[in-house]
Amino acid sequence: MILWANSIKAQRSRIGTLPFQQFLKSFASDSRLGFNYDAAFQGEIQKRKDTSTYRVLSNINHVINHQGPKAYTNDHRKVIDVWCSNDYLGMRMNNEISSAIHSFVDRYGVSSTGSRNIAGHNQVFVDLENSLANLHRKEACLVFNSGYVANDTTLATLAQKLPGCVFFSDELNHASMIQGIRNGKAAKVIFKHNDIQDLEEKLSRYPQKTPKVIAFESIYSMNGDIAPIESICRLAKQYGALTYLDEVHAVGMYGERGAGVTAALNISDQVDVITGSLAKSYSATGGYAAGSSAFVDFIRSFCPGFIYTSSLPPHDIAAALTSVEYLKSSDKERALQKSAVRKLKDALSDSGIPFLSNQSHIVPIMVGHPEYGRLISRDLIKDYNIYLHHINYPTVAKGTERLRVTPTPLHNDEAILKHFISALKELWKKYDLHGIDHWKANGFSVNDPCHFPLVA
Amino acid sequence: MILWANSIKAQRSRIGTLPFQQFLKSFASDSRLGFNYDAAFQGEIQKRKDTSTYRVLSNINHVINHQGPKAYTNDHRKVIDVWCSNDYLGMRMNNEISSAIHSFVDRYGVSSTGSRNIAGHNQVFVDLENSLANLHRKEACLVFNSGYVANDTTLATLAQKLPGCVFFSDELNHASMIQGIRNGKAAKVIFKHNDIQDLEEKLSRYPQKTPKVIAFESIYSMNGDIAPIESICRLAKQYGALTYLDEVHAVGMYGERGAGVTAALNISDQVDVITGSLAKSYSATGGYAAGSSAFVDFIRSFCPGFIYTSSLPPHDIAAALTSVEYLKSSDKERALQKSAVRKLKDALSDSGIPFLSNQSHIVPIMVGHPEYGRLISRDLIKDYNIYLHHINYPTVAKGTERLRVTPTPLHNDEAILKHFISALKELWKKYDLHGIDHWKANGFSVNDPCHFPLVA
Repeated sequence: MILWANSIKAQRSRIGTLPFQQFLKSFASDSRLGFNYDAAFQGEIQKRKDTSTYRVLSNINHVINHQGPKAYTNDHRKVIDVWCSNDYLGMRMNNEISSAIHSFVDRYGVSSTGSRNIAGHNQVFVDLENSLANLHRKEACLVFNSGYVANDTTLATLAQKLPGCVFFSDELNHASMIQGIRNGKAAKVIFKHNDIQDLEEKLSRYPQKTPKVIAFESIYSMNGDIAPIESICRLAKQYGALTYLDEVHAVGMYGERGAGVTAALNISDQVDVITGSLAKSYSATGGYAAGSSAFVDFIRSFCPGFIYTSSLPPHDIAAALTSVEYLKSSDKERALQKSAVRKLKDALSDSGIPFLSNQSHIVPIMVGHPEYGRLISRDLIKDYNIYLHHINYPTVAKGTERLRVTPTPLHNDEAILKHFISALKELWKKYDLHGIDHWKANGFSVNDPCHFPLVA
Repeated sequence: MILWANSIKAQRSRIGTLPFQQFLKSFASDSRLGFNYDAAFQGEIQKRKDTSTYRVLSNINHVINHQGPKAYTNDHRKVIDVWCSNDYLGMRMNNEISSAIHSFVDRYGVSSTGSRNIAGHNQVFVDLENSLANLHRKEACLVFNSGYVANDTTLATLAQKLPGCVFFSDELNHASMIQGIRNGKAAKVIFKHNDIQDLEEKLSRYPQKTPKVIAFESIYSMNGDIAPIESICRLAKQYGALTYLDEVHAVGMYGERGAGVTAALNISDQVDVITGSLAKSYSATGGYAAGSSAFVDFIRSFCPGFIYTSSLPPHDIAAALTSVEYLKSSDKERALQKSAVRKLKDALSDSGIPFLSNQSHIVPIMVGHPEYGRLISRDLIKDYNIYLHHINYPTVAKGTERLRVTPTPLHNDEAILKHFISALKELWKKYDLHGIDHWKANGFSVNDPCHFPLVA
């Protein structure tokens, strides 16, 4: 670091002594003959800054000994309320999981020592994959280092190995599915979000014999709305397509044993492939894909993102296994989460803050402008000790910038909720932000609390 | 699982009562109208089985309380010697790392609760990234969920954002780099392994102003040989290319503070981007890329594999930080590893077992046939209680199938080495495998112990 600081200093001092044209020339020859890479990187970054879409990391340290959904920033004295955690069920502080980590570290050491194929496969992987296959009532399951990798490498591999395959992808699919389909280089047809008619019209253009994959999510990350899974499965049967469903925001939380929206609707058997995350409601790390034995053996044998990577340490797999098994039997966390979500949606409705209507735990509060999103997040942490990250383009469409709120079992505290609502009301006034009417006039369904009728 | 077993049973019993053509028809309509997905998956798997390249996972449980490089299989009573671990320095049993995990789990809980951009960034990430930037004497560093993801998403993003960029990729590059370049969809030129003349000839075909990335490794995973890094950097300067060096099999082990081959050669400043793994010598999980501040801010801002994924739990980042800092100051593990490697290479030379000559800790014992590789691995574990996984196509070229041996500080034990060499000698005789002369006659450099002259 010292070397670097010195070289910057040397360059700065040289700048002071040179006319501008000479400086530019010296910079070009200093950096590299031909293309100036750092300038290109800085140019891309500047574009983001110019459009208020430059991301700044927030230093958020969740500690155990705080009561409620608390954390501190890089200033240890500043304790904040966190309203955008993906620790959806508060399992981060579950004692059974931490005990599993302690005991696995003490018994097996700290690493897996290799890829799954070479020295890095062991009994706890077998147990976790059996537990997840059982959860989704599928023949088999494969664990990946993340949900992102699970989607990316599985979809790309399907694209490369199913001859002439066409992918039908919901327009709001997560980046990991978009990347996987893109990387597989097969034909791709994007259908309108949750639009069965559009999907059918597009499916019907291809011969019955053409392999097809319909890729979609059960709960969409940024809208919190739920796919018409049963209708999509019916179309899949009719047109001979494989259904690939991402339940990443549903597993642990919905349906019997937390087996997801498919379980809540009792249609797990109608979906061919279910993928999920171990890093959200399960508070561990990793992701997975479950399906038929042939499918799982196929992805295990061919996915580069599975084969050519070090496997997760045994203690992390033990954490995931403990959490999945715990949430198969405990309903307490799910009930407390739903209660906190109801309270928040009711309070938002009462205060006139606009949020997208849906039947899930994801509460998208609508801002509608990237710069205001950034300012609200800044003010919330600075003036109110509340951490809630804004969501801008490209994660959501321009004009639909939002605050994605995810109440957990720890958010049932009335004082924390009251403080949050009062902060939002003040900021809505301060920045003169759109209310409910604006969003309704633009065709959005907002502020219907919904109360989980589909997936109660 | 019961549902599935019943349906298989039902299908089996139906098969018994139908003529063959009717059975086929019933199977097609049972599985799906149109394309039969499971049959396609099974077909791909069968191709692997037919060519002896089907992978079978070995259940290997490394326990703490065994002395030496021991593990047990799914049969708890069967204790084996492991000769293919990527826990290169035996850090899996390091007490400082396990203490860090225990204390972080107790203080911060078991998960990061989000992506780096939303709730999942915290102080230990800052500390680890600073520690790694400092290790490689670079301005900045970014941690990813794995080394695979670091290479894949970084190279793909460079390809997409550097206008008209051409990638120059060593023909033996790791799958993660191949995938990244492929996924970026930019122009790609493969140069002959470690061949400076071929690289220069290919670089010279493009205009000076064209952005170029030379992607290569310091130590190649399957050959253990070392790239001519200094010459490649000289060419990069001459032709205006960015150098992207994977030090995944070198960090922790070579050079001052374990900063890799570039540090051993004192040329860290000549390489633009260094990527590394936290899951091999450091015995944690994750990977990283280090470079200029502009480069790191660029990949942080644009890599989907960084942005759209849950970050690793704080305890795993603390484990990595502890290990990196520990190996900056401790040389003991590096010395013991090199001693074990020397002993193995000397013993192999004495016994006439052919291994590729190189200057690293990776000892590729040459088999030359996929089926014999499989049989030797099988016999080693069955008859000798030794676990050493064979490496077949597509990981290595057909005809160069091998056993990739990686002695660690725990492999200095004379009895374990003697048992290993004696087992190999018996199996070379049993299967009448090629000796040194065959490989020499085919242009391979074998059985020169080399003793680390370059990276001592």
